Amino acid sequence: MVAPENLTDLEKARAQDPVFALHVGGKMEIASRVALAGPDELSMAYTPGVARVCEAIAADPALSDDFTWVPNTVAVVTDGTAVLGLGDIGPRAAKPVMECKAVLFKQFGGVDAIPICLDTVDVDEIVETVVRLAPSFGGINLEDISAPRCFEIEDRLKQALDIPVFHDDQHGTAVVVLAALENALRLTGRLMETAKVVVSGAGAAGVAVTRILLAAGLKDVSVLDRSGVLHSARGPLNDSKRALAEITADVTGRTGALVDVMVGADVFIGLSGGTIPEEIVATMAPDAIIFGLANPMPEVHPEVAHRYARVVATGRSDFPNQINNVLAFPGIFRGAFDVRARAITEGMKLAAADALALIVAEEIREDYIIPSPFDPRVGPAVAAAVSEAARRDGVARR
Amino acid sequence: MVAPENLTDLEKARAQDPVFALHVGGKMEIASRVALAGPDELSMAYTPGVARVCEAIAADPALSDDFTWVPNTVAVVTDGTAVLGLGDIGPRAAKPVMECKAVLFKQFGGVDAIPICLDTVDVDEIVETVVRLAPSFGGINLEDISAPRCFEIEDRLKQALDIPVFHDDQHGTAVVVLAALENALRLTGRLMETAKVVVSGAGAAGVAVTRILLAAGLKDVSVLDRSGVLHSARGPLNDSKRALAEITADVTGRTGALVDVMVGADVFIGLSGGTIPEEIVATMAPDAIIFGLANPMPEVHPEVAHRYARVVATGRSDFPNQINNVLAFPGIFRGAFDVRARAITEGMKLAAADALALIVAEEIREDYIIPSPFDPRVGPAVAAAVSEAARRDGVARR
Repeated sequence: MVAPENLTDLEKARAQDPVFALHVGGKMEIASRVALAGPDELSMAYTPGVARVCEAIAADPALSDDFTWVPNTVAVVTDGTAVLGLGDIGPRAAKPVMECKAVLFKQFGGVDAIPICLDTVDVDEIVETVVRLAPSFGGINLEDISAPRCFEIEDRLKQALDIPVFHDDQHGTAVVVLAALENALRLTGRLMETAKVVVSGAGAAGVAVTRILLAAGLKDVSVLDRSGVLHSARGPLNDSKRALAEITADVTGRTGALVDVMVGADVFIGLSGGTIPEEIVATMAPDAIIFGLANPMPEVHPEVAHRYARVVATGRSDFPNQINNVLAFPGIFRGAFDVRARAITEGMKLAAADALALIVAEEIREDYIIPSPFDPRVGPAVAAAVSEAARRDGVARR
Repeated sequence: MVAPENLTDLEKARAQDPVFALHVGGKMEIASRVALAGPDELSMAYTPGVARVCEAIAADPALSDDFTWVPNTVAVVTDGTAVLGLGDIGPRAAKPVMECKAVLFKQFGGVDAIPICLDTVDVDEIVETVVRLAPSFGGINLEDISAPRCFEIEDRLKQALDIPVFHDDQHGTAVVVLAALENALRLTGRLMETAKVVVSGAGAAGVAVTRILLAAGLKDVSVLDRSGVLHSARGPLNDSKRALAEITADVTGRTGALVDVMVGADVFIGLSGGTIPEEIVATMAPDAIIFGLANPMPEVHPEVAHRYARVVATGRSDFPNQINNVLAFPGIFRGAFDVRARAITEGMKLAAADALALIVAEEIREDYIIPSPFDPRVGPAVAAAVSEAARRDGVARR
């Protein structure tokens, strides 16, 4: 570190800032699982002993799963193009987020995660790079890659690899939103099949949330981008938006702007940022459900939301009902790794959401539709449900 | 793990084998350096707090060195083409060796190392992949990549990156051999400038050992591959061998086979495998120095070597004078990282060798020309010398 007398004013301010202090030197490190106290251990862990383990794996590659850390590791891969709400800040500036994901993977799932921040934003280059890295990892967690590139990258990696590939901004968010919504609907006496839902945001999270809700039985959902409700007659849409329109507004026939579809809506899910005017919120159905998930500013501030809604959730830890991906990704990879799953299926995601919802089922309240990330039941419950679903879906290797 | 009743006979044997038992589940894991005990810590290490750290790095990329683990990490990169003495066993089977390197990096240098086993053997692809990964790492340790590809890969990565790039099979070996030879020459009353040296093997280690000995003052060295002494008149040589011939036999004028150059030789350094016939060893100078570094079978067995030589070293831990790369690479990267070196220079390697040799200077004996890897003075001494040399060579960033 720089000597105190050489610090700029900005640096001095930072040195007293607990957030920066927490990050000095990074948030993670490597630890050894073997004690190398002397030459005997060294000759087993290194040459000549290790050669026999290498030869055994060369003869039977599946043994890599038994004698290396590979099957418990996940690469947290980003290109830094869509980091938190900050946007395209590049791979170096994205690193603190990736380190935090790694720490959370370990703390809540016992998974060893390695941040991989790539110096390219080219889809082909990202895909080929991750494919070349794949022998080193048991799974790939894509993170903070901007839409629509993230969809193609995930699809191509799933095709190319026989290990779990999971874009957390899509599917982690989707799993936790589904879990929270299942409980919120139950609490307000609604059914997924008849609820009227508005999703604001057609990026990575909006696409994945909408898809998982449809898979869970939802029929009436309108997805909006900045130009209003996505539907095929609206004009040229990119591939992911057109595909989404075809299974949402093209079916329901709903069109228009937010002001149109919010009238009588049971559920609003904000995944876009911006602020929804209070007079629009006021038109929702009685006992509405409002998830304002933009960070740090929810699309509807909880104070406003509570005037019209019975259940309110945000992405923030300082309000009740925090929708936080950390409830999902550690347990999902734990469950996938426990059975050496070849992939993460739709069934595994739905099972993760159900398990998460069930944890608070006995104690469900308006301000408690989803457990805390620090609830020790979360990781094991999600993992067990995911493992079971992997077996059911035929992707478990053991 | 597989249930005991489902184990094959081979697997049962392995379960009782201490080497395989040591490797179950791999040898390393990720650990957190921050305690995330509750929502307050989470909101500092993750959203919303972490966003401020990301923004600061986006504005000033150099801050990545202060607030991430990057400047303390090294990627241990292999394609699995030249693993130990096993040859081209592929990236998956190479993993146990890379994990061990990572454990040794941490134990002896406090460096966080990540094994990266690449699913390609193409030079262009390896180079471009490592360049894309570079924002994630503070240094690149190339490992077990076959010659002559390893030379081009290292050269191109050094050109492309402004972080240390170090092919351990070359330079780690070279540093430790130089240290041991300095002490052996001193013990036998010889000078580097007048010693007659034979290096058997013109692969990665042979090339690097020869080059560092020349840089340290050696004049008379003959390097042999399977066809005999490398010299330009011998016929077509690949680039690295031709370059080596030009600075060795083309200068000394020595040609022929091992049997020719061993007559009167002061030093034999075996980096090739195979066995040197005793009658050839017998022709060396009195008080000869023999380093038989092939593993597990030295080119000259110590029992035979001691009949003719005064100082004998091997790569094995069960004989005195073990030439082991672990004496060099952890301290070299520690020293480079401590001053945020942009590269590892020739001066830094020579300084590492001198520091290593100096550790045993007071107690030097025929069976103690090099310290034990478990000597706690090794890592700090090498690191300090390397840091100082980096400053001297103008590659230190602080």
